[in-house]
Amino acid sequence: MTRTFDNNVPTKFPNLQPKAPNGTDLLQIERSKASFDVNTLSKFSYGEEFLNRKEKILRIIESDPAFEKSQRFFQSRHERMTHAYEKDKRTIELSEELGWDDEDRHIVNFLYDQPSPYSLHYTMFVPTLANQCNEEQKKVFYERALRHEIIGCYAQTELGHGSNIQGLETTATYIPETNEFEIHSPHLTSSKWWIGTLGKTANYAVVMARLIIHSKDYGPHPFCVQIRSLEDHRPLPGITVGDIGPKFGYNTIDNGFLMFDHYRVPHISFLAKFSQVKPGTGEYVKPVNARLSYGTMVLTRAGIVNGSSLVLARGATVAVRYSAIRRQFVDTAEPRKWGNEIIETPVIDYTQQQYRLLSTVSNVYAILYASQDLRQQYEINQVEMQKGNFSLLADLHATSSGLKSLTTTMALEGLEDCRRACGGHGFSLFSGLGFAYQDYLPFVTFEGDNYVLTQQTTRYLLKTFRSLVAGKISTKAHHQNMTTIYLSQYLQNPNNTCPATSGTDFLSPELILTAFGFRAAYGIAQLVEELDKNGSSWNSVLVDVARVSKAHCQLVMVQSFFVRIQQASEKELPAPERKVLQLLACLFALHTMEKEVAEFLVSGYLSASQSKLLKRQVLDLVAQIRPDAVSLVDAFALPDYFLASALGRYDGKVYEQLVEYVEKEPLNQKLVVDGYEKYIKPFVHRGLKRHNDSKL
Amino acid sequence: MTRTFDNNVPTKFPNLQPKAPNGTDLLQIERSKASFDVNTLSKFSYGEEFLNRKEKILRIIESDPAFEKSQRFFQSRHERMTHAYEKDKRTIELSEELGWDDEDRHIVNFLYDQPSPYSLHYTMFVPTLANQCNEEQKKVFYERALRHEIIGCYAQTELGHGSNIQGLETTATYIPETNEFEIHSPHLTSSKWWIGTLGKTANYAVVMARLIIHSKDYGPHPFCVQIRSLEDHRPLPGITVGDIGPKFGYNTIDNGFLMFDHYRVPHISFLAKFSQVKPGTGEYVKPVNARLSYGTMVLTRAGIVNGSSLVLARGATVAVRYSAIRRQFVDTAEPRKWGNEIIETPVIDYTQQQYRLLSTVSNVYAILYASQDLRQQYEINQVEMQKGNFSLLADLHATSSGLKSLTTTMALEGLEDCRRACGGHGFSLFSGLGFAYQDYLPFVTFEGDNYVLTQQTTRYLLKTFRSLVAGKISTKAHHQNMTTIYLSQYLQNPNNTCPATSGTDFLSPELILTAFGFRAAYGIAQLVEELDKNGSSWNSVLVDVARVSKAHCQLVMVQSFFVRIQQASEKELPAPERKVLQLLACLFALHTMEKEVAEFLVSGYLSASQSKLLKRQVLDLVAQIRPDAVSLVDAFALPDYFLASALGRYDGKVYEQLVEYVEKEPLNQKLVVDGYEKYIKPFVHRGLKRHNDSKL
Repeated sequence: MTRTFDNNVPTKFPNLQPKAPNGTDLLQIERSKASFDVNTLSKFSYGEEFLNRKEKILRIIESDPAFEKSQRFFQSRHERMTHAYEKDKRTIELSEELGWDDEDRHIVNFLYDQPSPYSLHYTMFVPTLANQCNEEQKKVFYERALRHEIIGCYAQTELGHGSNIQGLETTATYIPETNEFEIHSPHLTSSKWWIGTLGKTANYAVVMARLIIHSKDYGPHPFCVQIRSLEDHRPLPGITVGDIGPKFGYNTIDNGFLMFDHYRVPHISFLAKFSQVKPGTGEYVKPVNARLSYGTMVLTRAGIVNGSSLVLARGATVAVRYSAIRRQFVDTAEPRKWGNEIIETPVIDYTQQQYRLLSTVSNVYAILYASQDLRQQYEINQVEMQKGNFSLLADLHATSSGLKSLTTTMALEGLEDCRRACGGHGFSLFSGLGFAYQDYLPFVTFEGDNYVLTQQTTRYLLKTFRSLVAGKISTKAHHQNMTTIYLSQYLQNPNNTCPATSGTDFLSPELILTAFGFRAAYGIAQLVEELDKNGSSWNSVLVDVARVSKAHCQLVMVQSFFVRIQQASEKELPAPERKVLQLLACLFALHTMEKEVAEFLVSGYLSASQSKLLKRQVLDLVAQIRPDAVSLVDAFALPDYFLASALGRYDGKVYEQLVEYVEKEPLNQKLVVDGYEKYIKPFVHRGLKRHNDSKL
Repeated sequence: MTRTFDNNVPTKFPNLQPKAPNGTDLLQIERSKASFDVNTLSKFSYGEEFLNRKEKILRIIESDPAFEKSQRFFQSRHERMTHAYEKDKRTIELSEELGWDDEDRHIVNFLYDQPSPYSLHYTMFVPTLANQCNEEQKKVFYERALRHEIIGCYAQTELGHGSNIQGLETTATYIPETNEFEIHSPHLTSSKWWIGTLGKTANYAVVMARLIIHSKDYGPHPFCVQIRSLEDHRPLPGITVGDIGPKFGYNTIDNGFLMFDHYRVPHISFLAKFSQVKPGTGEYVKPVNARLSYGTMVLTRAGIVNGSSLVLARGATVAVRYSAIRRQFVDTAEPRKWGNEIIETPVIDYTQQQYRLLSTVSNVYAILYASQDLRQQYEINQVEMQKGNFSLLADLHATSSGLKSLTTTMALEGLEDCRRACGGHGFSLFSGLGFAYQDYLPFVTFEGDNYVLTQQTTRYLLKTFRSLVAGKISTKAHHQNMTTIYLSQYLQNPNNTCPATSGTDFLSPELILTAFGFRAAYGIAQLVEELDKNGSSWNSVLVDVARVSKAHCQLVMVQSFFVRIQQASEKELPAPERKVLQLLACLFALHTMEKEVAEFLVSGYLSASQSKLLKRQVLDLVAQIRPDAVSLVDAFALPDYFLASALGRYDGKVYEQLVEYVEKEPLNQKLVVDGYEKYIKPFVHRGLKRHNDSKL
């Protein structure tokens, strides 16, 4: 037993192939069944210009070491962060070199697919400065931020205070004598907390603090404040700043905390585009009407809705491709063969898997088109607001709030369902779905908590309903606003019922839209009755408030989907692509109706027997779409570099890729694990000794 | 600007208190409102003996450095694994020292709350040897495993093959000449994969391989095989073994892969308790009836169901306590005051939060009592089987499959909902819910995938229904089996409807049980019709198969809950504790009914107007239970050491604990982050230079 012992021997797999049929063969078979052209559908969904830009940028970054991805599976938090710093720096260099604009950098970030320390500089600091600086401040802050000479963050949330900005504790007291503000954190709970890019990266921060002038509290206002030395990056005196520690995800960003100890900043720090503090006197000048900024919120939310489609598209791509490859059990009623051999059935051939995955695919398209519609409504509204017409704003703002809430929840749940639909291997980080899920989680909480947001939507819907009942909205306006249209229809016939007598009747867009409109309006009417007639408090009906918002937004999504198809020209959307999209729109609508069937039943619109027709129709749609499954996810046009998934590779080399990743695992670089001597050997050698002793 | 610069300065928070009222005050107020005695309820739920053991073990381990927890937030995978090795070794030492038995070690693991490398040695290797070894093998394998002289794992799953054991590829060919078996991995997909404790720890493995004798394939059989040297832990020649890399959770275990290259093992490796291969001739002797081992599966599943209650109890404890402390927005209709000051409203006072959290609390109790009931049924069945009576087995096995599926899904979803109910701070690992979620995730897949398991349950239910319709089950047997009882009731009156005319009518256990029974039976009847009359294939009805299993198991849970209360003596369960449990049982039942209301409506049992009564009754129950919220989670008796959560501390010092953890974050041990010089400074100093140049 005296082999020479080199412990530094990496594990290598024997040179073996997976059992036939392999993934490449199986995906090829799937793709040969497509009823439509993948590129045509991609172009219709994403636009040719975007797809071309993406291709161009992909070619640049996928071979650049600063954007390398496979190591992140094995890195510690600190290592991942350092690599993300490298990516941020390289992106700045490439932007200067190649003239990339914001849209290009957006594509870089989408492909790189990992938050990085500079993120909040771009998404919050720079935009806030752009909106809130006066001309002088633009030079001092904004332009330097654009050149990365200062790196900033947006410090609003506090340790004890989240969504309610009125509860913030940090104060900024005007000192007339020196024309300064003194920023101070009075309690532990007033520490700024969760602020991305703050922990170790930013040297500036926009700080939301209560403005105090001559002992009067004017509520929270924004200040642009230096927090670290530009010479050596040390925190400045009076500042306590650091990282808030590990999180469930987002660990490549340094979310930070920040406390002020009677910290003085000059007068220019007060961002003075909207309100002002006059130097010397400290006279406070009120902000002008801020309704214009509501438009920006709609834009941000349209972006988030678009992002939720992407998140779900990733999950669906991985799960659908892998489900065509992964085989489990022999379906004895209809056994699959490869050559002469009976093989296990690919899991995508089980109806339950189809039901899960294809409804998810339909969700991806539904969310995508809803986000595009929202974006379009935003553009229209911007033009109208410039003309002084604010009549579209309230409806748009309400819908965007509800859609953000609904679609981010859909995306998160759908992504996790896709991960589970991959069985055991979905649990490996090599599935590419683990980090994706962890990093997406905050989206259901930030930019408006998903529960809180529904209140905004529902408040608007109730108000509109009451106005309609009171006759305060003219019929002329009906033609401009979908909400008033479906509410009016309901009020005209509150006992309407569904006319469907067969499953295929449910395929009519008119029937579907009427059904969704009726159900949403019924929920609103019930809630108004509960509040106005039964005298229930707002707090006591919050569960229904959330339901009503969801019902409205599902209607919006169904409508966006059908309208998108209807309005497409024959050239943009030829017959085969139109047909499959129409099936998907129906699947989205009917699957949603099935999930929410209780509300359709309770409203009296749908009968129990109709609900059974509906259920069968959903399965029928799933069966019709099944042959296109792989091609439909191919049309999401997500490159392997983005997916970084062994299970979701375009070429189907699932097992080969898993093995390749495993060979890189740090534990596999040594034959014997570090803990062996101390924690395993004592017991094992005690046993060997016992054995030898017993032989004596 | 020449301060001396020491970068190794850890960040310290200023010595400030949270803004009043603090967490300790708020929890005290909550506890003062309790309608019952916390200890009495704990003892009723968990038994005094268990609680005492737990206390005793807690006192030993919470001060032992081998069981220390706070560092795990910051450790790399390798560091966490090494620490877990230390814990395993120390547990063995303490067991030998203090005479701990399996139950004690179970409590240690529950409190330590992190998978560790030896885990599968205990949960799979040793039990398999106990069950499958003949007397000779017990000495050679089992007894040495008990003494940790050999460390083993259970290698069944393969890279390309999960739940379907018949699909395994690894072969074990009998070689009569040498009386050996030759184990071999023919393809890449035949590599053993996902095997816990295998990657770097085990030196033995029970390997499931297809037994081949004289070219005949007898299907998968277990072999106990040495894979690493007992001298120096090196993999033996012919063995390729290693770790499968990082996972979404469970990273403190070395899940591994294992490949065999014509690897010879002696005849004794074939575990011969059930079937045998005669030496020399290779004659195969068939196994005896294996039905007895079904009993063991029930026991394992009862344990998993019990564990899902614990997982959910953790989530509920953290979320409920923190929700009493976290304040957000002023409820203007009913503003809260502290002294004279209006304060933000604790989030637990919002009905939506109550609805989420209290239904979760009721789930914890419902799952707990269902697991205890299952355990009791297991004991009864074991006694009966010993007498040769197998009549209880099928029902018990079916229910245990469905309950495993239902309750692990409930636990996982509930845990995540609790995390989100904590708002932003729920996303910090310091919430104590992140690792918990990640490590619990595999439970919905292993020991039977939750989707696949429902097929077992439903198959049994359909069979029973058909037998009843065909008159093959005698009425006498009805008294022994709940399934036949509710199916018979349905068959007697398939047009039954719910008699409730007021919300409080729904509080009757009889009404509730009849409703759940009718709904489950209706689903079964519909499915039988679909299969037997409409000729649908099993594959095409899998969605409904899952629904039927769930309906049956929800009935089982509701019944277990009510029976547990009913059968408790006045001494065990005095009036105040009985009252709150009865409310919780009703909340569990009615909240479940509300969630599944579509099925109750479609079955015709419930009307739309009754569903509205039901909805109000749920909110009414929530309001009644609200004052007991914190005490109900206190009664789960989960110590702070177990929770390891800043948000869930018993004393409510949430913000103080968060700050204390943050000070330990490695990034906060240096003033300036490592990436600064390379990735931040160049841009900032370019700016300084530009500024200086412009001044020249």
